[in-house]
Amino acid sequence: MKIGIDLGGTNIKVGVVDGGRIVYKDSRPTNLAWSFERTVDEIVSLVKVVVEKAGINVKSYGTIGIGSPGLIDTVKGEVIYSNNIKWKNAPLAKELQGHLGVPIKIHNDAKVAALGEAVFGAGKDFKKSILLTLGTGVGGGVIKDGKIEKTQAAAGALFGHMSIDYNGRLCTCGRHGCLETYASATALIADAKAVMKVGNLDGKAIFDAYRQGNKAAKVVVDNYIKYLGEGVVSIINICCPDAIILGGGLSGAGDILTVRLKEYIKDKIFGAKHIAVDIIVSKLGNDAGIIGASLL
Amino acid sequence: MKIGIDLGGTNIKVGVVDGGRIVYKDSRPTNLAWSFERTVDEIVSLVKVVVEKAGINVKSYGTIGIGSPGLIDTVKGEVIYSNNIKWKNAPLAKELQGHLGVPIKIHNDAKVAALGEAVFGAGKDFKKSILLTLGTGVGGGVIKDGKIEKTQAAAGALFGHMSIDYNGRLCTCGRHGCLETYASATALIADAKAVMKVGNLDGKAIFDAYRQGNKAAKVVVDNYIKYLGEGVVSIINICCPDAIILGGGLSGAGDILTVRLKEYIKDKIFGAKHIAVDIIVSKLGNDAGIIGASLL
Repeated sequence: MKIGIDLGGTNIKVGVVDGGRIVYKDSRPTNLAWSFERTVDEIVSLVKVVVEKAGINVKSYGTIGIGSPGLIDTVKGEVIYSNNIKWKNAPLAKELQGHLGVPIKIHNDAKVAALGEAVFGAGKDFKKSILLTLGTGVGGGVIKDGKIEKTQAAAGALFGHMSIDYNGRLCTCGRHGCLETYASATALIADAKAVMKVGNLDGKAIFDAYRQGNKAAKVVVDNYIKYLGEGVVSIINICCPDAIILGGGLSGAGDILTVRLKEYIKDKIFGAKHIAVDIIVSKLGNDAGIIGASLL
Repeated sequence: MKIGIDLGGTNIKVGVVDGGRIVYKDSRPTNLAWSFERTVDEIVSLVKVVVEKAGINVKSYGTIGIGSPGLIDTVKGEVIYSNNIKWKNAPLAKELQGHLGVPIKIHNDAKVAALGEAVFGAGKDFKKSILLTLGTGVGGGVIKDGKIEKTQAAAGALFGHMSIDYNGRLCTCGRHGCLETYASATALIADAKAVMKVGNLDGKAIFDAYRQGNKAAKVVVDNYIKYLGEGVVSIINICCPDAIILGGGLSGAGDILTVRLKEYIKDKIFGAKHIAVDIIVSKLGNDAGIIGASLL
């Protein structure tokens, strides 16, 4: 049994994981106004509650893994920089280690979720898989042979920040045409609101309307498949994984998304006839981060 | 000492390599009308000439490496498919092995050149480097810890086929906006011809005119830097190498290209302040393929 911590901009989640299955988990909200020290205290307190409820001493778990937003120095155990939780050179692993008395391993949250999916989720039959999360933004991770690809600062795999139109939509990163300005849930919902004239749309409502034959929804989803498809073809041409796993809120659309996407990309991949890349949806959903962290 | 073979659409090149330095090399033109068997015979004959001139028996060289265009089954030693030399499931390594009596290792030509540059050329001080060739098309390879990244069919790293504008220029691959339709030498020359009204332009002439203050050349080069820069930023966001090595014909522009490109990308890379990616030009030039092949 292992402990995994998933630190997000919205919640801290801690789980006890046994063979890829969460046997106990708990979470509490993150407050972006908290200091680094306060956040550390909250994580420590939540870990202690979880291990107590699970009925085992924290030291018996060995190393604890944590996924954190931002650029990470996995060797020093620091969050180098996070735009999300506003830290700079925060010694997260060292502090947690001091409080919990066990070794702490840290990595980027998106890559940790990709690791969870690759090892115990939708990617487990594939040698090289990419998790592509379609949520507030577009994120992801590349996993090969059950390991996160090593890069400086745990960066890379920022698929949301590949531009699919250098003259296109302005991204929060300052560039134009980044994939996440077209293929995130946020972008899909904004595009749908512009034509469907419905106030309270979410991803599910858009795909439901599409399924029911709503014409405006069809236009929006057709465009969405094109945007996402263009990104996915380029990702395949560059990374050549054996599977792309769609995660994040929009992956709930399931077959609609995967069937339409496979159809869109099948002749566009370079050397398509000779390359086999499966397009599937996430199996672990929101638990991928905890399970991935437990594997660090 | 090792033998490396670089099979291209224009030439077959064979070299004897000692510690990353070519001690003897020779080449002959490739003919795309040749059968597979004829091409094999020409390669075998050229290898025999080269080893004779170098004064050593071919068997004393151990394994011979060959870089070939196309998708490659590196285990079976086959060229799965090449659009360039029009082969399908061609057992190139096996045939060469039969004729030469030594083990043959085969890999994709662009990746083999990237390997040469990474180990003995411009990339030798970097853990992870990407060779980006700016020639007839745009190609490349990703090398980490002195090894070609493993992928199915030796595919991936097809940076020329990342779209930077999904509504953009039509590519030979059928997609729109592929980086090579903007950032190849072919594209640069076509763009320059359209505004400079000079018949016989090549990359060097364009950069020379730019250096001399030619206004039309400035517009063309400014646009070129934008196109290439957009591609390079996306490549860095996805792959996060420690260095990008510019190769191919246009890399002769040297500092103009690297200085302007660094300036263009420096604030656009995600988390730019915390990521160090050097932009440099190839050192081995056209020899990278032979030297890389000798390392297989």
